[in-house]
Amino acid sequence: MDRMSDDIDTADRLHRQVGFILEIDKLKLILRRTLLIDRSRRENDAEHSWHLAMMAMVLAEYAEPGVDIGRVIRMLLLHDLVEIDAGDTFLYDAVAEADKEAREQQAAERLFGLLPDGQGDGFRALWDEFEARETADARFARALDRVQPMLHNFHTEGGTWREYGVTLDQVRSRKRLIADASPRLWAYVEALLDEAVRRGYLAEKRA
Amino acid sequence: MDRMSDDIDTADRLHRQVGFILEIDKLKLILRRTLLIDRSRRENDAEHSWHLAMMAMVLAEYAEPGVDIGRVIRMLLLHDLVEIDAGDTFLYDAVAEADKEAREQQAAERLFGLLPDGQGDGFRALWDEFEARETADARFARALDRVQPMLHNFHTEGGTWREYGVTLDQVRSRKRLIADASPRLWAYVEALLDEAVRRGYLAEKRA
Repeated sequence: MDRMSDDIDTADRLHRQVGFILEIDKLKLILRRTLLIDRSRRENDAEHSWHLAMMAMVLAEYAEPGVDIGRVIRMLLLHDLVEIDAGDTFLYDAVAEADKEAREQQAAERLFGLLPDGQGDGFRALWDEFEARETADARFARALDRVQPMLHNFHTEGGTWREYGVTLDQVRSRKRLIADASPRLWAYVEALLDEAVRRGYLAEKRA
Repeated sequence: MDRMSDDIDTADRLHRQVGFILEIDKLKLILRRTLLIDRSRRENDAEHSWHLAMMAMVLAEYAEPGVDIGRVIRMLLLHDLVEIDAGDTFLYDAVAEADKEAREQQAAERLFGLLPDGQGDGFRALWDEFEARETADARFARALDRVQPMLHNFHTEGGTWREYGVTLDQVRSRKRLIADASPRLWAYVEALLDEAVRRGYLAEKRA
């Protein structure tokens, strides 16, 4: 390849990468149900993703042996990008859950397709791995994604548990994957849930 | 150490780590001057940090040889934490710049001090490295921190350049560190600035 067409290829490549960087700014506009700890507003997906990546740095020692925290961080940074198109699906919303996968697959197609070919594939593979929850890296990433809203709910005196009448059994069944990823974090969560019930932040059974 | 005191030590360690995770939620409340690309509101530090970490993943190939992108990502995730106490200092605000360092050092002391000893030191060392801008990793991280608001300013037809009457010379002098970190990204930025002047988003000289 001569120098000129090489320059043009590089320019096109960087142009596509910048296009992706601009497009993902929209993740800052996707609101989750979770409240910030000061309760001033709901959390958005971009700051949530940042918080999870920080949690991976801080809680790395509780991951299974062999977990690559660098990969966990990257997975967490991009795990919610599909919600730019597909929106946030509340963990306890069974109706939205039904077509969530189809909506998210389509979103992944479009968003990672903005990147140059080889690079988009790599990002997509990381997201697929997160979704499939089969590797130890993905299990740890998903566990953190489940722990964080519990911390917020506890420290906002119930948060979405109270708002949507979620019960202890529901939380336990959606959170068991934390146990598979990290017995130590699961023990912490179990104690937190017991305390949440004791304080009336979380109902033990449906009223 | 017997089993029981070992458990207590682990519990205290995790307790401090969770305390840090809760405390840094406040980064979501620190507003920067930069507008989101849809101009609906100003950007906060947490989502900004996420955006930079994503940029590091996407633009890794433009870093100097030997740059460790995993370290760059970690540095970017925590680079603004001190602003929880010290607030955001606008790049072109010379008055606030004067005591910025003292305020930020104190903030680093308090925030990283929330973590268990060895861990807090490691985080602090990464932040110090970012601030000192002496390593190739830190140079690339800082370059991305300078590129991102330019992208936002350009794509909001001037953003803070227009709002605060910033001129091309001022931008160029604050952005030269991009050239040290990545000639390719600097070439991109130079073209972007020229186009910004041509379109009237950025004044060539003070009016």
